Amino acid sequence: MKTVFSPRHLGHSNQLELVAGAIVPAFEKPSRAQYIHDRIIDVGLGPIIGPDEYDLSSASRVHRQDYLDFLPTVYPRWKEAGRDGTALPFTWPTRGLRGDVVPEFIDGALGYYSFDAGIGFVEGTWDAVKSSHDVALTAANLVKGGERTAYALCRPPGHHAGAGFMGGYCYINNAAVAAQWFLDQGASRIAILDVDYHHGNGTQEIFYRRKDVQVINFHADPMQEYPYFLGHADEKGEGEGEGFNLNYPMRWGTTWESWSAALEDGCRKLVDYGPDVVIVSLGVDTFEKDPISKFKLKTEDFPKIGERIRKLGLPTLFVQEGGYAVAEIGVNAVGVLQGFENA
Amino acid sequence: MKTVFSPRHLGHSNQLELVAGAIVPAFEKPSRAQYIHDRIIDVGLGPIIGPDEYDLSSASRVHRQDYLDFLPTVYPRWKEAGRDGTALPFTWPTRGLRGDVVPEFIDGALGYYSFDAGIGFVEGTWDAVKSSHDVALTAANLVKGGERTAYALCRPPGHHAGAGFMGGYCYINNAAVAAQWFLDQGASRIAILDVDYHHGNGTQEIFYRRKDVQVINFHADPMQEYPYFLGHADEKGEGEGEGFNLNYPMRWGTTWESWSAALEDGCRKLVDYGPDVVIVSLGVDTFEKDPISKFKLKTEDFPKIGERIRKLGLPTLFVQEGGYAVAEIGVNAVGVLQGFENA
Repeated sequence: MKTVFSPRHLGHSNQLELVAGAIVPAFEKPSRAQYIHDRIIDVGLGPIIGPDEYDLSSASRVHRQDYLDFLPTVYPRWKEAGRDGTALPFTWPTRGLRGDVVPEFIDGALGYYSFDAGIGFVEGTWDAVKSSHDVALTAANLVKGGERTAYALCRPPGHHAGAGFMGGYCYINNAAVAAQWFLDQGASRIAILDVDYHHGNGTQEIFYRRKDVQVINFHADPMQEYPYFLGHADEKGEGEGEGFNLNYPMRWGTTWESWSAALEDGCRKLVDYGPDVVIVSLGVDTFEKDPISKFKLKTEDFPKIGERIRKLGLPTLFVQEGGYAVAEIGVNAVGVLQGFENA
Repeated sequence: MKTVFSPRHLGHSNQLELVAGAIVPAFEKPSRAQYIHDRIIDVGLGPIIGPDEYDLSSASRVHRQDYLDFLPTVYPRWKEAGRDGTALPFTWPTRGLRGDVVPEFIDGALGYYSFDAGIGFVEGTWDAVKSSHDVALTAANLVKGGERTAYALCRPPGHHAGAGFMGGYCYINNAAVAAQWFLDQGASRIAILDVDYHHGNGTQEIFYRRKDVQVINFHADPMQEYPYFLGHADEKGEGEGEGFNLNYPMRWGTTWESWSAALEDGCRKLVDYGPDVVIVSLGVDTFEKDPISKFKLKTEDFPKIGERIRKLGLPTLFVQEGGYAVAEIGVNAVGVLQGFENA
């Protein structure tokens, strides 16, 4: 299995986030990707290649153009406002407030295009975001070219980013852009299996009214866990998209037994859908020792995820999402990939 | 003029807020109220009395009951979650996310009921919020009892709090509750004049579909300034409330000349409305030296605000809102009241 990876993610470093009433170094840090990178070499998973440059034409079909135009301007505008450090929003257009006017000033614009206070920008953030997007499409192109699978070692991740909002460490929704790119290249149907601990609210929101992308999420119950405001079982898609969104919310403490039963059910529905390609939003924060998550998957469970996905018998693109137990993230993420390869 | 004041506001102290990418001591701090309190004594404005206890029955007609039930539980639940310091939300249900389900976990519930990361809770916050509510209603009762005017030295302030959300240092909307209380006591129409630098988005949201409360705001243009997502000139009320909401957004750098022209226009519309009582949401952060605001009013301008309001010839309740240039807040807030008294 080939891995696509860009060292440009390193420019997105030392950003801060608000959590539990304090500003702390973001849990989403460069070492995450480096641990995975090193583990790939250690176990000889396959070659690691750099990304090609892609334009944002597929991205503009899943994201609002004004949102894409906004992202590269954030840090320059933050500095123009006399600030340094991490650009963070601090107020948001929730219910009762207007969502139809983008404020001029950077603090308002940041809030307009986001939903949390963990979505920091530093000097190198946009370049890292663009490189992550390119990593996803380069890996997608390998799959389109005939490889059974490929791994996009994306950083920053993408699945919380919606059509017009960022959050949860995510700016461009790499998996959603890859799905759109496959369709733009002639595919008819794509399925996204999101196995991250957190609900992929951005991916769901993007495709909620579409039938050409099936979105299946296995995640912590939003009653208990971030992102809180999406991911309930009754969210099944709307209009043309009705029936093409599937959520499997699970309570804190969920172990492999019930988690894998949900995966099994989701995989059966994926087979019924009959996609041309499967995109796996690969988060490994379901791990029992993850510092910000509360599921109980063990290291030996992760290869079994890969094995199950391999049984689908479909071209498969893995896109890295979350996972924060830094020391083990490499073992667990690569464990899924090895499970797929060795099945 | 009598002032109503409660020292219980002091329990709401040392709370933090997120601003410009950093956690800082909140600009909304106890010394604000103490400076005003001391200035009242210095100039001999009149007696300062404590509040009577009021139940939340009027509050429950302007706020959602579940929101009012939530507020006292915040800090106990924060501690149950193993936290200390300042309870702050960090993720919010913005567009594309659901606003119809309240998450179980405190972090989600805090985001559900708020719209910014400046709305901190400490141990004494709820008690201070309740005392501020009582201060407003005690002062309202003085006006109902025949006093031409009274001053509710509320802290925390209220005008950013909506029917089901807090933000901008505001939890219960003291001015809105007072308006409702006057109606509950038999008044037919109430006008709220909000002269705070920041748009009173909560007050507007609460009364937007009602004709028994006219809401008039003079404030910084939301394109440039907090709260960003409400306060445009085209927001005029809806349904029965159409025509009863008036916004005067003004650009950074606004001076007394144009600010007072807006006040003049608003006062004429207030007279046309013919309210039984005027409630002034009294912010003095329009002051040229305010640390978080960008208008250019001078100390000598504030008494002229009081003079103009006195000319309305109506029973008038002043309710303290913002103002953060701590050293001058007493002079400017009391300046408005003296202008009213001496006109």
